[in-house]
Amino acid sequence: MTRPADATSGAGLAPLPPTSTIGILGGGQLGRMLALAAARLGFDTCILTPEEGAPASRVAASSLVAAYDDPVALAEFAARCQVATVEFENVPARVVDRLLAAGVRMAPGPLALATAQDRIAEKTFFRSVGVDCAPFVAIDRAEDLAEALERIGAPALLKTRREGYDGKGQAWIRAPQEAEAAFAAVGAAPAILEGRVEFVRELSVIAARSWSGEIAAYPLAENTHEHGVLRRTVAPAAVRETTAAAARQIADRLLTGLDYVGVMGVELFEMADGRLLVNEIAPRVHNTGHWTLDACEVDQFEQHIRAVAGWPLGPTRPFARAEMINLLGDEADAWAAYAADPAARLWLYGKSGARPGRKMGHVNRLTGALPD
Amino acid sequence: MTRPADATSGAGLAPLPPTSTIGILGGGQLGRMLALAAARLGFDTCILTPEEGAPASRVAASSLVAAYDDPVALAEFAARCQVATVEFENVPARVVDRLLAAGVRMAPGPLALATAQDRIAEKTFFRSVGVDCAPFVAIDRAEDLAEALERIGAPALLKTRREGYDGKGQAWIRAPQEAEAAFAAVGAAPAILEGRVEFVRELSVIAARSWSGEIAAYPLAENTHEHGVLRRTVAPAAVRETTAAAARQIADRLLTGLDYVGVMGVELFEMADGRLLVNEIAPRVHNTGHWTLDACEVDQFEQHIRAVAGWPLGPTRPFARAEMINLLGDEADAWAAYAADPAARLWLYGKSGARPGRKMGHVNRLTGALPD
Repeated sequence: MTRPADATSGAGLAPLPPTSTIGILGGGQLGRMLALAAARLGFDTCILTPEEGAPASRVAASSLVAAYDDPVALAEFAARCQVATVEFENVPARVVDRLLAAGVRMAPGPLALATAQDRIAEKTFFRSVGVDCAPFVAIDRAEDLAEALERIGAPALLKTRREGYDGKGQAWIRAPQEAEAAFAAVGAAPAILEGRVEFVRELSVIAARSWSGEIAAYPLAENTHEHGVLRRTVAPAAVRETTAAAARQIADRLLTGLDYVGVMGVELFEMADGRLLVNEIAPRVHNTGHWTLDACEVDQFEQHIRAVAGWPLGPTRPFARAEMINLLGDEADAWAAYAADPAARLWLYGKSGARPGRKMGHVNRLTGALPD
Repeated sequence: MTRPADATSGAGLAPLPPTSTIGILGGGQLGRMLALAAARLGFDTCILTPEEGAPASRVAASSLVAAYDDPVALAEFAARCQVATVEFENVPARVVDRLLAAGVRMAPGPLALATAQDRIAEKTFFRSVGVDCAPFVAIDRAEDLAEALERIGAPALLKTRREGYDGKGQAWIRAPQEAEAAFAAVGAAPAILEGRVEFVRELSVIAARSWSGEIAAYPLAENTHEHGVLRRTVAPAAVRETTAAAARQIADRLLTGLDYVGVMGVELFEMADGRLLVNEIAPRVHNTGHWTLDACEVDQFEQHIRAVAGWPLGPTRPFARAEMINLLGDEADAWAAYAADPAARLWLYGKSGARPGRKMGHVNRLTGALPD
């Protein structure tokens, strides 16, 4: 966290003309919806993914199937793209460095990616910009846990320091004697111990920042997770004015503090006293922003493409209330029922293998008008 | 017009499962927006187009670059697709026949395409289903014009019987002595002479019909043309209840009469007495339906994909009033100004060469709420 402000940003970027190519690292559903949004604005996309026939590749002008750190593929990717972005946070730093060295503008840039990849760096950054989060202690060895538990108290949540998403790589420690097993359960790798947060609701804010520092945030969304995976989002969340303002301030501090460019998902815990703690940030479009696809004139995917391409950000005010539910695993087999429901706006990701819990699609519903 | 009801339709079609491939003949902006809509629903698309790097191909899972009647390409296209559709009406009959023979379901089918390709067949069909249009006479030779002008009166509009769009292949005859020059101007090919229609407004209705005969129509749109090319659409058009009902009845007769499957654009003239005459039909998604992209939950492109795929049709009620303007030729060079206008919802087609009058993109604006 001693790096200076992100070297890739700063002076802004001249708006990228239509028919330019935007590179996307990652070929899943987020990349797919980014590619669709880019196409609307006349851009081509190039997908780099290790997966043959990936969801994003099937709607992109071109794709390269290779490991992310394959030097030949990266050189070709760099040659095709004017600017590049990511659909997942765990892009290796050496990949980002190589693209920057090849002259590709990256949005988000290396500082944001490095910060989001390391839970200690992430939470240290939160503190540095005055944003509250759960108490935490870095755990490098099993022996660190005893003292950490004394400081933070039990129950506490042990998470791997790197990787891990959708509840993977996590273990609860309810009493000191569970510490060793928990450390083994998360792979006996560098970890973080987080104090338990007695939150009343999970909220999130989807915000975007342009190369020139302009910030636009969608209204807060309220989220429900099941087994660590997002199940349902309702937006705009019913919150007090002060909560909305606090969330907006958090987003401003995070995006400005990272000299961030693009859309970021910020997961929040709402406490009984109304205070907001940041759970984690995702330096990319976010599942809790999928409701914007059908309830906003400019959705989070177009917003991200606008930011990445140096275009002015679009409006973020929804024209309706919305509810989003994820279709996980074989739930997507009910596509015919959703297709027949006139109130269901269906999104399917073009995936064939519906393993349990896999995100196969989502359904948005408009649930009413908003007051003027 | 003596053919029986379209052999490709009738008993309905089991809904095509997501990840199936929908074939699209034609690679322009209509194919591009169809491919984007198909991707939303989890379908792959395969584009057949003679153009390398066509707008639609750049967002499709696969494409074949070949002449439409290339037998090798058609065999490959047929092998890849479960169902096929078109983005333009002038698909040669031998192409449609070959695809049907290869077992591909076509929507729209051969009857609709043949009818829309021949202005005499089209207008004869209108009469057969009790739909009004301008008086017309078939013109096979220059010598036919004198008698035709006597029957219809001058001024009258001479159009080629086949091909011709956006005002091309047309010539006005203001007096009998202009007849010969007009016939030469439209290429001295089989033609149609149409009586002048003293309309007060140009309207259009975008309607869809499913394999099982369900019909859904969007509200009427009001259109302004310049030099034969669409400039502006406002929707819903301010019309009397009786006009809306008459347009809906016309759409019902046309779509049912052709055993039509998919979205059809129906261009209408509104007369001073409120009567509607059909100008022409387009057996495809239509430029006067682009407003639905930002003002309806299910736009004309998703609606067409739903129909073609055997899915239930979606709702057609807009959630806002909208205005669409086409960006023609170098007007699209103003993309940065549209990008910076928070009220402008921009669509660009990914075309590089902005020759005068070429459709490069369009802009939708939401212009107000609709009464409940």
